Amino acid sequence: MKDALQTYLTEAIPLYGAMQASVEGADTRSVALIAPLAPNTNHQSTAFGGSVASLATLACWGWLWVLLRDAGIDARLVVSRSEIDYLKPVMTALHAQCDAPDPIAPRAFLDGLARKGRARIELDAMVTDDAGVVCARFNGRFVAIKEPA
Amino acid sequence: MKDALQTYLTEAIPLYGAMQASVEGADTRSVALIAPLAPNTNHQSTAFGGSVASLATLACWGWLWVLLRDAGIDARLVVSRSEIDYLKPVMTALHAQCDAPDPIAPRAFLDGLARKGRARIELDAMVTDDAGVVCARFNGRFVAIKEPA
Repeated sequence: MKDALQTYLTEAIPLYGAMQASVEGADTRSVALIAPLAPNTNHQSTAFGGSVASLATLACWGWLWVLLRDAGIDARLVVSRSEIDYLKPVMTALHAQCDAPDPIAPRAFLDGLARKGRARIELDAMVTDDAGVVCARFNGRFVAIKEPA
Repeated sequence: MKDALQTYLTEAIPLYGAMQASVEGADTRSVALIAPLAPNTNHQSTAFGGSVASLATLACWGWLWVLLRDAGIDARLVVSRSEIDYLKPVMTALHAQCDAPDPIAPRAFLDGLARKGRARIELDAMVTDDAGVVCARFNGRFVAIKEPA
């Protein structure tokens, strides 16, 4: 899944390439992305908020992509809403991780998608630095729309 | 102000360059940024949510930068929290605009900064497409910390 997600993100999203991001791990339990600081700095030589939010968005989006692929479902995924708290400046590489929420939410999401062709789910991601310090907390609402067969 | 902000953002934030963004207008009433779709697309060939959020963040950040520069104040600006609603896919170039909030908020912000060396302010930005349709609404909380003289 890791290589498949890396290929997909690289091909589909130019900004992912511009951020020099890559997939550290990807399975149905968790997706972890990493990006070096240099292409993602701001005026203070810490991570630019937009890069932090983008990486967190993609970690959640990537986890959903893995979930659907694992379930053999073809659906369009969009983010409909998100919020992020920037807790500390990131002064190293950026690490974004989205862990699977409790099993009820993904099951309800997949059931809803199968029944109604459309479902939504809320996902959290954390952005940490190289030392594992939590620098940002992200929450996003994602919508999946099943592609007509 | 427009050219100064463009130079500043280009030099300080590599992702701004990667997004091929530019300043359309910048004064104390409003800051408007634009970015072409191609470097900012997603898997659906509409704008990537991370690009939309980044451009909105920078419109607000840019407006604060203009406000402080206009007031002759040297301060560090950081985003501490933000939320964004993605209302519609952007299928053209992305336009992000931050308008000055009612005059009381900026005055309180500048007063607080002068008195305490630190102040915060909430700002809104809209992201529209080429036709002026509102595609995303952004709200961010920004903090300014005065640099020691």
